[in-house]
Amino acid sequence: MYSLVFTSESSAGGIRERDFTVGGVPGVLWSPSAGADGAPLILMGHGGGNHKKHPAMAGRARLLVLGCGFHVAVIDAPGHGDRPRTAHDEAEIADLFRAREAGEPEGPIVVRYNAHLAEQAVPEWRATLDALQALPEIGPDGPVGYFGINMGTAIGVPLVASEPRIKAAVLGQHWPDVLAEQAERITVPIEFVMQWDDEHISREEGLALFDAFASEQKSLHVNSGRHKELPRFEAESAVRFFARHFGTRS
Amino acid sequence: MYSLVFTSESSAGGIRERDFTVGGVPGVLWSPSAGADGAPLILMGHGGGNHKKHPAMAGRARLLVLGCGFHVAVIDAPGHGDRPRTAHDEAEIADLFRAREAGEPEGPIVVRYNAHLAEQAVPEWRATLDALQALPEIGPDGPVGYFGINMGTAIGVPLVASEPRIKAAVLGQHWPDVLAEQAERITVPIEFVMQWDDEHISREEGLALFDAFASEQKSLHVNSGRHKELPRFEAESAVRFFARHFGTRS
Repeated sequence: MYSLVFTSESSAGGIRERDFTVGGVPGVLWSPSAGADGAPLILMGHGGGNHKKHPAMAGRARLLVLGCGFHVAVIDAPGHGDRPRTAHDEAEIADLFRAREAGEPEGPIVVRYNAHLAEQAVPEWRATLDALQALPEIGPDGPVGYFGINMGTAIGVPLVASEPRIKAAVLGQHWPDVLAEQAERITVPIEFVMQWDDEHISREEGLALFDAFASEQKSLHVNSGRHKELPRFEAESAVRFFARHFGTRS
Repeated sequence: MYSLVFTSESSAGGIRERDFTVGGVPGVLWSPSAGADGAPLILMGHGGGNHKKHPAMAGRARLLVLGCGFHVAVIDAPGHGDRPRTAHDEAEIADLFRAREAGEPEGPIVVRYNAHLAEQAVPEWRATLDALQALPEIGPDGPVGYFGINMGTAIGVPLVASEPRIKAAVLGQHWPDVLAEQAERITVPIEFVMQWDDEHISREEGLALFDAFASEQKSLHVNSGRHKELPRFEAESAVRFFARHFGTRS
């Protein structure tokens, strides 16, 4: 087991932010400045091309920490943020840009590359969760959730499927290829988002992935608009979803 | 124009409840006990077999009045609540119970009967809205919303399609027959609910009605479960939808 090493710490506006590494993987842990002991932990997966402190991550963490009193952790995915890109990463990204430029479908490349990243990221997440639960302010008994859209779902679906400590998840905006079969093994409550006018992921594909989850309690939120137009209020909905399942502490 | 006649009034826990009639149609108006002048007005349509003060109506009204400071009005649909049933009503209800008993699809009967009720209910709603807006505490300028599921959608879709004063609506759980064509004329923001395991309305039918709305801003909330298992948290979501579009006053 890798231990967690804190590399920096700051605190502002009721939020304590600590950078860390676990086995060389860099992450960030956001917690309430006070009263955080034993609070639920939400793991968040960032989108493709982004990183652990992207404004979308910091904004969602803020809602979860200040609104619910939860801990929130994000790690950089392989080839993202503060992590080096391999030659394979560079080749896949170049192929994606080439397809985009040529007006070809991005799906097959993104699905293939995300599946490759997930193979590496899932064990990294499990090691990170082990190390986070070894911290006295988190501990092994509190509920754990997962929240990740796009690439965060490509990594999140196999993670949630294989990790019994994760008790609820917010996912969405991904193709069902690769993931649907893993989703069939997931039974925890799910909130899933998709865009009705997504230019990359068809309605049928989005609905097929939602349908695949074996969860008795699952909700789908569809909004009009294109792939990148997911409304901001869905982040607030995700926070309420976790609050409903885990309770709030503030 | 019919005027509104108040027939009884009570007040408890911050909510003022006034029964009224407009042209013989009985209704109820719930308002904040204080500070209600010029507040937005939400018209709510009850479900088939229910009535204006069904617990679902009173509960949603409570959230809207106490949570947002809005006025909320419900009228009994034709043949419902305090209104007499015609021989046609009796025959349709008997046919529905016969189909249910025989295990036949209820859809064709409900679609046909609801369309018949909507023809009468839409002008009743417009007269009620005229009369409500003539009250000094509501007035003609505040935003108006509509919230109705099931039969409340069968009446709500033609009402919203023909009534430019209604600026946002929460609808859902109905077949697209009859309604889809009317929904194509609706452009105001919509939140729409459906049940993923509805034993009466297929997924394709629910999605087709959602798809029909011409609204630039529309959201679909799908939940696992059967027709009658719509989760309670969708009422809270509807309240937030109106608060987002109309602002809150409390």
